[in-house]
Amino acid sequence: MNGLMMDVPLTIPSILKRAAQVYPEKEIVSRWSDGSITRTNYGTLYKRVVRLMNVLRDLGVQPGDRVATSAWNSSHHLELYFAIPSLGAVLHTVNIRLFPDQIRFIVNHAEDRFVFLDRSLAGLYAELQPSLTTVERYILMDDRGTPPTTMPSPASDYETLLASASDEEYFPPLEENMAAGLCYTSGTTGEPKGTLYSHRATYLHAMGACMVDSLGISEKETVMSVVPMFHANAWGLPYACAMTGAKQVFPGPHLLGGAIASLMEAEQVTLSAGVPTVWNILYQHLKQHSQKLTSLRVIISGGSAIPRKLIADYEHDLGVEVVCVWGMTELSPIGTVARLRGAMRNLPAEKQLAIRATQGISVPCVEIAILNEEGESLPWDGESTGELASKGPWVASGYYNTGKPNTALTKDGWFLTGDVAAITPYGYVEITDRKKDMIKSRGEWISSIDMENLAVEHPNVREAAVVGRHDPVRDEVPVVAVVLNEPRPQEEIAREMRDLLATQFANWQLPKLSDIRIVEALPKTSVGKLDKKVLRVQILNSET
Amino acid sequence: MNGLMMDVPLTIPSILKRAAQVYPEKEIVSRWSDGSITRTNYGTLYKRVVRLMNVLRDLGVQPGDRVATSAWNSSHHLELYFAIPSLGAVLHTVNIRLFPDQIRFIVNHAEDRFVFLDRSLAGLYAELQPSLTTVERYILMDDRGTPPTTMPSPASDYETLLASASDEEYFPPLEENMAAGLCYTSGTTGEPKGTLYSHRATYLHAMGACMVDSLGISEKETVMSVVPMFHANAWGLPYACAMTGAKQVFPGPHLLGGAIASLMEAEQVTLSAGVPTVWNILYQHLKQHSQKLTSLRVIISGGSAIPRKLIADYEHDLGVEVVCVWGMTELSPIGTVARLRGAMRNLPAEKQLAIRATQGISVPCVEIAILNEEGESLPWDGESTGELASKGPWVASGYYNTGKPNTALTKDGWFLTGDVAAITPYGYVEITDRKKDMIKSRGEWISSIDMENLAVEHPNVREAAVVGRHDPVRDEVPVVAVVLNEPRPQEEIAREMRDLLATQFANWQLPKLSDIRIVEALPKTSVGKLDKKVLRVQILNSET
Repeated sequence: MNGLMMDVPLTIPSILKRAAQVYPEKEIVSRWSDGSITRTNYGTLYKRVVRLMNVLRDLGVQPGDRVATSAWNSSHHLELYFAIPSLGAVLHTVNIRLFPDQIRFIVNHAEDRFVFLDRSLAGLYAELQPSLTTVERYILMDDRGTPPTTMPSPASDYETLLASASDEEYFPPLEENMAAGLCYTSGTTGEPKGTLYSHRATYLHAMGACMVDSLGISEKETVMSVVPMFHANAWGLPYACAMTGAKQVFPGPHLLGGAIASLMEAEQVTLSAGVPTVWNILYQHLKQHSQKLTSLRVIISGGSAIPRKLIADYEHDLGVEVVCVWGMTELSPIGTVARLRGAMRNLPAEKQLAIRATQGISVPCVEIAILNEEGESLPWDGESTGELASKGPWVASGYYNTGKPNTALTKDGWFLTGDVAAITPYGYVEITDRKKDMIKSRGEWISSIDMENLAVEHPNVREAAVVGRHDPVRDEVPVVAVVLNEPRPQEEIAREMRDLLATQFANWQLPKLSDIRIVEALPKTSVGKLDKKVLRVQILNSET
Repeated sequence: MNGLMMDVPLTIPSILKRAAQVYPEKEIVSRWSDGSITRTNYGTLYKRVVRLMNVLRDLGVQPGDRVATSAWNSSHHLELYFAIPSLGAVLHTVNIRLFPDQIRFIVNHAEDRFVFLDRSLAGLYAELQPSLTTVERYILMDDRGTPPTTMPSPASDYETLLASASDEEYFPPLEENMAAGLCYTSGTTGEPKGTLYSHRATYLHAMGACMVDSLGISEKETVMSVVPMFHANAWGLPYACAMTGAKQVFPGPHLLGGAIASLMEAEQVTLSAGVPTVWNILYQHLKQHSQKLTSLRVIISGGSAIPRKLIADYEHDLGVEVVCVWGMTELSPIGTVARLRGAMRNLPAEKQLAIRATQGISVPCVEIAILNEEGESLPWDGESTGELASKGPWVASGYYNTGKPNTALTKDGWFLTGDVAAITPYGYVEITDRKKDMIKSRGEWISSIDMENLAVEHPNVREAAVVGRHDPVRDEVPVVAVVLNEPRPQEEIAREMRDLLATQFANWQLPKLSDIRIVEALPKTSVGKLDKKVLRVQILNSET
């Protein structure tokens, strides 16, 4: 027997409509390439989205069609976030930090019919255009950057199209399971894979982000998403902010230090979200300039682990709370949030910090487990480690158009994250490694992340990365690559490092002295993550 | 094209499972009839629910079966809130304040197979039993009250059944649109009607309650629901608290003044919810005893309008924020929440109070409109008034088993609330009357609520109610029934009242002097609401 409740689908346009009805005056601020600022609001956003939907119709966009965006965070991008899914088409956010070859691959793989791009990126697309076989037209959005010297074609101007479009409102009926968004993971292995979001997943994720214990987005916040809108829907913030009428501040392309600080101050940002690198650079900037932020209250940090010291520094020096989250493109992306609870608030400061620096507990709608090699669920005892797995209405069931059956799920329906983790009895996830980065030595595992965390405590070491290399006796042995603050002899560093590592690792786990290598820099992916795949090749090459 | 997201249904047992996994230690406190306290937690709750599901299976409960509860707020009731829906059966919460005839009607109408009841209510059911034709067994839960002198039969003891049940865990697969709960509106007109909640609606409503700008339920709150669990799922709080791991405090049958105050203090309650009467009595109690509440932070008030002065008193005298909400059984029940936003926070105190005393703005998932007699949507200008209508995934599409097609929805799919309201340009709902209580005089409408609000400003008037009576010339004229603080002559009161009303009502809207009536008391429904249907009959009788 079914309940007698209305069959109202959870869709993205319903978020926009309510924002325009209930919060028409609440602001949306964009800063452009040249530093200039423009302001709009949810009432005007709605009207422009209505026109933009008609632009898309005039272009011939059909439900299910993929329409790409290639843009920094701005009100234009927000318009596309609503207009494309509201038409039943698929918003494909292209990561503009990818290498050109990767962009070519994903635009062709997605079979995008149109690309909406920041004008300053026109040169890149002019170059790629001959090989983008499905794209029919490029729509250029003025981001007030350097005028392009070359242009893809055929091209149209965004504002010109909007100005000539009808303002007739028509929102077609949608079903909640329809595709709404597409985002490819840059991945350090294999080809990029596309996660295809549904309206339902995106709507539920936005509700989740507005829950007190999750991201806590609310009307009273002024939110600046430093995380790009081409990266996992900017963690869902544009939709969550619209759902609750929060003022949104879009920083454009300038995301570091002073550029962020000045915009935060000017717009009185209260909550911001981004990766640890951004927060580290912002903190250094503020410290150098003895500057404080008068409105900032909360930083949401994700993408990789943030040093505990930085969490403490933000709190002590700036009065800003740092909330650690963990997620993946395939999880829409929020999976866990690290907040203290109950009696934990009475623990000593160091212990509190340790808990807050974990990945945290799963948010409502997301179920988690750690699985052994046989796919069996392991106990939450803080010690057993297994592959972190996830289930839920905003978790991917597979990848877009792979041409083969989905392999992402286990027979019990779990999505395997590729992270190796323990879970405490209170449900806090502690990721110990990426599965592919674990080092297996004499049949036992060594956590590369644990070793890296210890290695950077050496006073001369700025960065460290640990990968395995084949060893005829021990199967695999760790290689520690370090970037130094200032030049020092390899032999000295190696001895000191071994002594340091020996404080927490067993003898059989320690690297050989010759496997402690000084490097100029560590290889990074296009999104700034350590690229261990490339590092392994470099290590291998240095041996031959 | 559909998204590639997991098809995971939104169900009530998933709330329980996560609470037990992630918040096993968080407390659930019950106070019983005799004032004694028991404590359990989400970990233990889960184990007892597993057993209770087996008790229900042993009794022969099948998916879709209705199982009634007749109980005050307690951990037992919470166990039933999870166990019955987790089995695919329907939790029918019977309002124990209804008149026996109404209880007979709804238990028979729902065709309940079993009734789980507080032992102190056994006498009532012993009396009703002969006419409860579908009930197979009564399960008595010890609420530590006066032992019953008569008992329904056959009867079993709750704890005895639990002790002998298997502890084998089995949660059957559920679909999210399956029926989960049933609640009848007491209604001042016609027979009680049943709203049949689905898992999906209940789950989404719980998520909504945990959003910052809605009820703001979170792990850090200690929540006491004064609103009974037999009344619209206690506004969804038991599920919202479990979803976020909030400590729950169940007050049992003693809900007034000192009983509430002492429990709030003992358990350090931070957030509570109930009707204005409860808050008025609590405030008077605290004032008389010069008592403060050291932990209480937020009161959620709904069910009827709360006097502005009481909102201000709570804030000034006790430092407690009062948040007004509006809802209906048919809306699961939360529809709107009144919070200030943006620039409103800079308004003068009186204006802020006026906004906070409205019904507020619609919460995400709930769409609202005001409709004229032709069903056309009226502008949100703060002046146009029409019938408040609602749409959304947790809004009723009809009533249970009425034997006729649903009449609750308009041709455009709106649920008509029966309330007459204006909506401000910022989306704040201001209910001016119940539709059936509007008075039509010379073709124009008079708001009975506006007249009542003004009438109680007379210094001698404790309560006032306004209803219409037929008039040969003007169609309908208002009759003002007042309860006085101390005896005074009718003629004096009538003259003073007319002068008072004349400050805000036009001459043609004013009652005749003889229609200002002094009464001993105003008739109330079983849930304490003013019963205008009875008042109209009394007025009519007093004229014959």
